[in-house]
Amino acid sequence: MVTNGSVLPGRLRARRALIDTYQQPVVYMRSDCAVCLAEGFEAQAQVEVVFDGRQVPATLHRVDADWLSHDEAALSETAWQLLGLQGGESLQVRHARPLESLKFLRAKVYGRKLDYDSMHALIDDIGHGRLSDLHLAAFVTACAGGRLDEPEIVALTRAMVDVGHRIQWPLSPVMDKHCVGGLPGNRTTLLVVPIVAACGVVMPKTSSRAITSPAGTADTMETLAPVTLDEATMRRVVEREGGCIAWGGSARLSPADDVLIRVERPLDLDSEAQLVASVLSKKAAVGSERVLIDVPVGPTAKVRSSAAARSLAASLVSVGAAIGLQVEVVETDGRQPVGRGIGPALEALDVMAVLHRRSDAPQDLRERALMLAGRLLEMAGRAAHGTGLALATRTLDSGLALVKFIAICEGQGGLREPPRAQHTEVVAAAGAGRVGAIDNRRLARAAKLAGAPHDPAAGAVIHVRLGEPVAAGQPLITLHSQAPGQLAYALAYVNSQTPIVAIDPT
Amino acid sequence: MVTNGSVLPGRLRARRALIDTYQQPVVYMRSDCAVCLAEGFEAQAQVEVVFDGRQVPATLHRVDADWLSHDEAALSETAWQLLGLQGGESLQVRHARPLESLKFLRAKVYGRKLDYDSMHALIDDIGHGRLSDLHLAAFVTACAGGRLDEPEIVALTRAMVDVGHRIQWPLSPVMDKHCVGGLPGNRTTLLVVPIVAACGVVMPKTSSRAITSPAGTADTMETLAPVTLDEATMRRVVEREGGCIAWGGSARLSPADDVLIRVERPLDLDSEAQLVASVLSKKAAVGSERVLIDVPVGPTAKVRSSAAARSLAASLVSVGAAIGLQVEVVETDGRQPVGRGIGPALEALDVMAVLHRRSDAPQDLRERALMLAGRLLEMAGRAAHGTGLALATRTLDSGLALVKFIAICEGQGGLREPPRAQHTEVVAAAGAGRVGAIDNRRLARAAKLAGAPHDPAAGAVIHVRLGEPVAAGQPLITLHSQAPGQLAYALAYVNSQTPIVAIDPT
Repeated sequence: MVTNGSVLPGRLRARRALIDTYQQPVVYMRSDCAVCLAEGFEAQAQVEVVFDGRQVPATLHRVDADWLSHDEAALSETAWQLLGLQGGESLQVRHARPLESLKFLRAKVYGRKLDYDSMHALIDDIGHGRLSDLHLAAFVTACAGGRLDEPEIVALTRAMVDVGHRIQWPLSPVMDKHCVGGLPGNRTTLLVVPIVAACGVVMPKTSSRAITSPAGTADTMETLAPVTLDEATMRRVVEREGGCIAWGGSARLSPADDVLIRVERPLDLDSEAQLVASVLSKKAAVGSERVLIDVPVGPTAKVRSSAAARSLAASLVSVGAAIGLQVEVVETDGRQPVGRGIGPALEALDVMAVLHRRSDAPQDLRERALMLAGRLLEMAGRAAHGTGLALATRTLDSGLALVKFIAICEGQGGLREPPRAQHTEVVAAAGAGRVGAIDNRRLARAAKLAGAPHDPAAGAVIHVRLGEPVAAGQPLITLHSQAPGQLAYALAYVNSQTPIVAIDPT
Repeated sequence: MVTNGSVLPGRLRARRALIDTYQQPVVYMRSDCAVCLAEGFEAQAQVEVVFDGRQVPATLHRVDADWLSHDEAALSETAWQLLGLQGGESLQVRHARPLESLKFLRAKVYGRKLDYDSMHALIDDIGHGRLSDLHLAAFVTACAGGRLDEPEIVALTRAMVDVGHRIQWPLSPVMDKHCVGGLPGNRTTLLVVPIVAACGVVMPKTSSRAITSPAGTADTMETLAPVTLDEATMRRVVEREGGCIAWGGSARLSPADDVLIRVERPLDLDSEAQLVASVLSKKAAVGSERVLIDVPVGPTAKVRSSAAARSLAASLVSVGAAIGLQVEVVETDGRQPVGRGIGPALEALDVMAVLHRRSDAPQDLRERALMLAGRLLEMAGRAAHGTGLALATRTLDSGLALVKFIAICEGQGGLREPPRAQHTEVVAAAGAGRVGAIDNRRLARAAKLAGAPHDPAAGAVIHVRLGEPVAAGQPLITLHSQAPGQLAYALAYVNSQTPIVAIDPT
């Protein structure tokens, strides 16, 4: 293809389109501009935008509106950031070159096995944003339904680690934990890290922000302390305190994982292989050595049966071993939310209540955190088998965990007070009875409609637990919001259809 | 979900974005507009735009630029047309409702078989544009690589016919032909239809426009006569003349096929099942009963080996029989272009030269058309076995085919003269030798870079055939273009890399 000969009819001036297409890079060009005509670009063409040695693949959307002129190329937010533009730069836009890795994608679609080198070629292109959304969806589909065997899952996981940045620690063992999501309020990380760090165990924790949930661990921690740390700051905190709770998104750790998650969510395919590769690649990239994985099981959790949890656990352990990670899995009760708050600040308040050993602190959150911390202390060799829970409990109850948490927050930039929402609304029980079920998914959605995680103060508080007796008119849920409109909208959602809290008449 | 309660914070005014996203409906909204905030829309959210009882699924792109105001929703061209808007209408934008058919898509991804009802539910949603591009890519991937068995291909084909419009004819047998693409200049349809119609055989031909090629049959015919016919006009022409050559895109014939093709092309997956369902569903929808399918085989054609052609032929014949179509397949030489012109007008000139029996008419185009017409005359029972070719030849040589072609053109709105390009450039042989190979794909691309099919006069003319001797400096290809810039660009492409016409030294 002719991409840089003298016949090229010219370049285009960079302009920020101020259009958010999530992670899909889009370039907007006048359909009658010289470059579109000369290159024969059709709408949705896969092109490459080139500036200063960087090449960003993008989808072309052709514009005939006057906001764009004939010598401009406007870029969606993702493309703008990938190219690091200021505005006015001279850009080249050309046909995307065919990717060699697509032949491995086709091979997988046709049912063949991929070795490490093929996986690496594909994952390298995925991690660098070179595959279109259609190709990403094809890859995810071709790997779902048990179509990856264990050697392929290992190759995939290794490749995901190898194409990104990898953090190394001078200390050992480096401990980590992970929860296979789907359970609102399950913010044990903010308790587990200070407990084990206070016991002298190393746990440099990186966490994600919410993707589809009302709060990620990083969002919750951010209401208490800064979480966007550069690697030097993170190392300094870990060296001094033994642990940190940082946002993991800025370090290009397993970058292909972030790209794949973007298409996996809307496709809603349960792919055990992708889940295992996603979780373990992030852990390996961040330098963890021993990982405890919490798998909540319940009808409205991500994993819905003990059988599914056991299959997942077996795969996590064996793939982990193949890439050098010691993995243990604990199956937990996923039938109802953990703690009371759902949303960044409301969850942070639960965490602080547990650390302060307040009498009204949510006991379920405390107990889960102690159980996980105990297991980690045993895995790290800090406590003998069967004694981890007691050590964790002593560490929390003595106030050492609180002291450690405050020190970690200060190291990350300073402890702060979580914000409070301006508007609240109580949802009360229509009749008397006993709590029969709580719908995790609809409760999470209500918290999001109230404004979480965009407004850190927004969300929901659940006042009842499974099996508790309830009187008519007793508060079940309190919605928290920064805007009356959102509060009304969340309330209408809670009151629609089947109740989020099912009350069985007694 | 609350979608029409009193808490809805309002509607948005329709505005034409004048952005061409090909067939992907996109809605542009200010990220801080009341609806985005209240609904919790994220970028790339799948939403439904509702106006006047119509619901169009769309992808949300969030805008922060000033060209869009907070009470407006701007729509891409496809979305605009699907909703039939004028501008200023009051629109509702809400979360897309979950599609029941996605559970069948997931079942297929997980390796289960789909029956007719499941296929129908999926194809109905696909044909109505309710699936996102990601889901379409997942469907195409899940069906590729031999993952549909024959009953599933039959179910898919039937469903594709059933969810669209179906044309019925009062005459029988209704004949049809199809070419499995990839061969530039193979415009036999414009000869076959007048020959068989002149012999009293019914052939109401609908053809497609170019998708990735420099000309579709409808594009070529359009340089000679109107092809966008309503069904009444088409019926009138067929009743009077026995045949027509119309564009098939306006009648919603197998609409899911058009949607699937849009994602299949960029994925570049060779899916025999999808190809069979695509071809046969279009034929059944247009009311054909007996279909002759031309499968060119060659290293740069769509089908690259005789073995692949035989497998495809077997599937076409048996799936055809299952849905009531009598299918015959003829394997033809696909090693080089047919005729000389590549591009709508240039191909039309070849066709007219054959119809006029001019001495310089391309003999390969003439011979292929006569062979196909002869087979069709035999399939229709109009000629005894072994005599069809002679009847076709007599019909062409007597001028009856030309008379019939002119009558068909007049019926469709009037015969016209194809346009001629303003600029041409000759590509000459660098050295002497013999033509060893012609790259169909690169030749087609050169014709597109010259402007075809957007400029009907643009394209390429190839002056040599395989095996012919060539002198140094002898013209090999002439490029035709309406713009000097495009001509230069096409020329640079032809002169780059390996030559399109390979000359073996003698």
